[in-house]
Amino acid sequence: MNGETPERPSSSDLSEYFELLKFETVGADPMRLRDCVQCATWLKKWLERIGADVRLVLPPRTGDFASVGCPPVVFAERKGDPGAPTVLIYGHYDVQPADPLDAWKTPPFEPTEKDGRIYCRGSQDDKGQLFSFLCGLRRFLNAPKGPVPTLKFVYEGQEESGSGALTRLLTERAAEDPESPVFRSRLAADVLCVCDTGAAADLRPAIVAGLRGVTHFTVRLEGANRDLHSGAFGGVAPNAAQAISELLASLHNPDGSVAVRGFMDDVSEPLPEELAAAEASAPSDAATEVEIGCPPVGGERTLPLVLRNSFRPTMEVNGVHSGYGGPGSKTVIPCAALAKLSMRLVPNQNPKTAMAAVERHLKSHCPPGMKLFVEDITGEAPALKLPLSSPVFRLASAVLEELDPRGAVFQWDGASIPVVSLLARVSGAAPLLVGFGQPSDCIHSPNESFSLRQFALGSAWAEKILGAL
Amino acid sequence: MNGETPERPSSSDLSEYFELLKFETVGADPMRLRDCVQCATWLKKWLERIGADVRLVLPPRTGDFASVGCPPVVFAERKGDPGAPTVLIYGHYDVQPADPLDAWKTPPFEPTEKDGRIYCRGSQDDKGQLFSFLCGLRRFLNAPKGPVPTLKFVYEGQEESGSGALTRLLTERAAEDPESPVFRSRLAADVLCVCDTGAAADLRPAIVAGLRGVTHFTVRLEGANRDLHSGAFGGVAPNAAQAISELLASLHNPDGSVAVRGFMDDVSEPLPEELAAAEASAPSDAATEVEIGCPPVGGERTLPLVLRNSFRPTMEVNGVHSGYGGPGSKTVIPCAALAKLSMRLVPNQNPKTAMAAVERHLKSHCPPGMKLFVEDITGEAPALKLPLSSPVFRLASAVLEELDPRGAVFQWDGASIPVVSLLARVSGAAPLLVGFGQPSDCIHSPNESFSLRQFALGSAWAEKILGAL
Repeated sequence: MNGETPERPSSSDLSEYFELLKFETVGADPMRLRDCVQCATWLKKWLERIGADVRLVLPPRTGDFASVGCPPVVFAERKGDPGAPTVLIYGHYDVQPADPLDAWKTPPFEPTEKDGRIYCRGSQDDKGQLFSFLCGLRRFLNAPKGPVPTLKFVYEGQEESGSGALTRLLTERAAEDPESPVFRSRLAADVLCVCDTGAAADLRPAIVAGLRGVTHFTVRLEGANRDLHSGAFGGVAPNAAQAISELLASLHNPDGSVAVRGFMDDVSEPLPEELAAAEASAPSDAATEVEIGCPPVGGERTLPLVLRNSFRPTMEVNGVHSGYGGPGSKTVIPCAALAKLSMRLVPNQNPKTAMAAVERHLKSHCPPGMKLFVEDITGEAPALKLPLSSPVFRLASAVLEELDPRGAVFQWDGASIPVVSLLARVSGAAPLLVGFGQPSDCIHSPNESFSLRQFALGSAWAEKILGAL
Repeated sequence: MNGETPERPSSSDLSEYFELLKFETVGADPMRLRDCVQCATWLKKWLERIGADVRLVLPPRTGDFASVGCPPVVFAERKGDPGAPTVLIYGHYDVQPADPLDAWKTPPFEPTEKDGRIYCRGSQDDKGQLFSFLCGLRRFLNAPKGPVPTLKFVYEGQEESGSGALTRLLTERAAEDPESPVFRSRLAADVLCVCDTGAAADLRPAIVAGLRGVTHFTVRLEGANRDLHSGAFGGVAPNAAQAISELLASLHNPDGSVAVRGFMDDVSEPLPEELAAAEASAPSDAATEVEIGCPPVGGERTLPLVLRNSFRPTMEVNGVHSGYGGPGSKTVIPCAALAKLSMRLVPNQNPKTAMAAVERHLKSHCPPGMKLFVEDITGEAPALKLPLSSPVFRLASAVLEELDPRGAVFQWDGASIPVVSLLARVSGAAPLLVGFGQPSDCIHSPNESFSLRQFALGSAWAEKILGAL
């Protein structure tokens, strides 16, 4: 790392960062809608102070549950110098739920600095990355070293739960209507900057060359009309806890591969240069074991780790709940069960086709006596795959080498930013995903944190790339 | 039903019954210890008013968790006429947890009368049955129609969670010590009356000829050191929710039979006359489907219902919990999972041997990357099997025919009263289990209830059998 990168953000940047973190923006939770609206309003005011025209937008109400009370999307535009390029900046102000609450060492929505790190839900994902980029962008605008690009901003509040509102805005009638704030041509841009991804080991910069797609869904089983006594009805009533276990177990083969017929059909293999580049930047099995605290035996155990994480789809049970879980015992046969699942998709997999295959599998494997419900299908975002040799990647590589003499590596991120493919298509912009996350930030986990050094890197990156584009 | 049976208990009996129900005696929950002690004290005072000598007893503290703060056992004795027999009466004042709370139509510990039924947790199991018997017993003592037996009472507060304290009291040193209130010979009795079981269809009286044994246990899995992002670590980290599903699914074969090697080895078949008697009183598949609201496809689906419920062991998942279960989605790979299980055992199965087989199975089927913990093993009670032709059964049949001209049937109850076998052995008494439960009482479920007619039958039974023994 060269000497140019400031090691600590300014105290005014930090104080704004803390303000942003305190909004409890769990976008998936209707109880947190007020916090989301307040946070979006805070972003609107911030963007107005740097000269942008800002609107908070909601999809048109259609009467269905999905459109009632969802967090608004922040759309903004700041005109640049004539002839300068247009940069579209995407981020999300929503965060994952904070639970399990008792695993947090500090209150999850009270930013707390300790040993150069800020602990808070969202301190990294994505409020920290989003705001470090904004701070660098403001620094650039204060002392531009070249033509100032036109800046467009899209910040949504549902990235963690499928980007429902933004997807509707970008795909439904609003996008065709010249009066609408999300009229397609208003989003036209040359480059789409996203600061929501990770750097490589030891904070070596990384450019994301691929993202997995994602679909979330909920599976419910209903058996008897009530929880039943496990003695009086044992051997008689079907057990929803046993049934959901059997149903979920059926999703994988003994080797860890996905057992859903048709699910893997369209999976395309990575190119040799992609696999080589991914291998070059991937952590070792041993380092991963240290990081996660157990053997890295998830996914298809017959394949190497980097392939499983970057180029293979997954099917994860994010949660399963049925029956009693309190102290002691409660001898019931549970009558209902709930599972939350998500799948990550790779290039060439169609989210609708994959989900249809999963629904067929669930129906055909539904244990006897149970009624099956597959609900809350959200996301349905395809994977993103970018060409390694694009001009924007060459430019970004040069800028990142200025920032860190080790230069940038390419990464195929196992995670998803569901709406990026769609935004890229609507805006016509070339996606440029560079972020400074590290596994130790514990995003989505208790005690999420972001170091001030990472924050400073995000700002430096924004300042430099906006001057270089 | 003949005209002798009062249709409604007296208002003073009812008002005492409501007092008893209001104690929130969830014996398995350490937070409810105070309620349990208050309830035991209430029972002590009640028994003293009918002339009994009463003690509340705890097992000696050994420093292990199990002996700290458990609900006391109520031991009482009321001397009878010289030469009259001794009757030991067993019941339990603890109840199942009330959750899911939101499924209750009235507060679970607020007895509420509606359409001749009392709704409350414990209104039947076992406070209702226990107290209906006590009311009849008091009526008998007020106007005895023959020699008054010596009455001994054992009421415990852990029947729903394995009878830990009472089992220890009956098996450890206390039982050998002549100074101890539970000195074995103090419990010596001729008949062991238990009012904690069900009648047949339409309240036709039933004598229990067999009970299944029970063992409860908890299974925990631990994977990574925290819940992990399902994208960043998808295909890398093992998933505890998926793992517990696979582990629980492995416990049964596709036909619903228990798949644990060695578990079924010692299961003995019922005698032809037992099976015939059980079939005579069993509800039909169709009636059962109406009762439980789904097809009765639990257990070994190749066998008839009555066999599965009365004479075959079961393995039930009473609850499974891992990861997220809230609104929307949370894309984590859960790092831990918990399952609560219980098994019902049949004659000739040894609870220790069966549990050892289950532990071996769980160890050998533990999914990769997971640490397995099998904890909280309680109950370990064998099944009870009584000879149909015993003198006490002949006497009880005659009394029950007085109560109901249809006469009594024999039942093999799928449920368990873990400590009955042990109490029978220690006291030398012949067990006589007659109760007036019905499936529609919803014991262990939300909205448990007991009709005033059932209460009156329990009292009439107590009054008559004590005069006849």
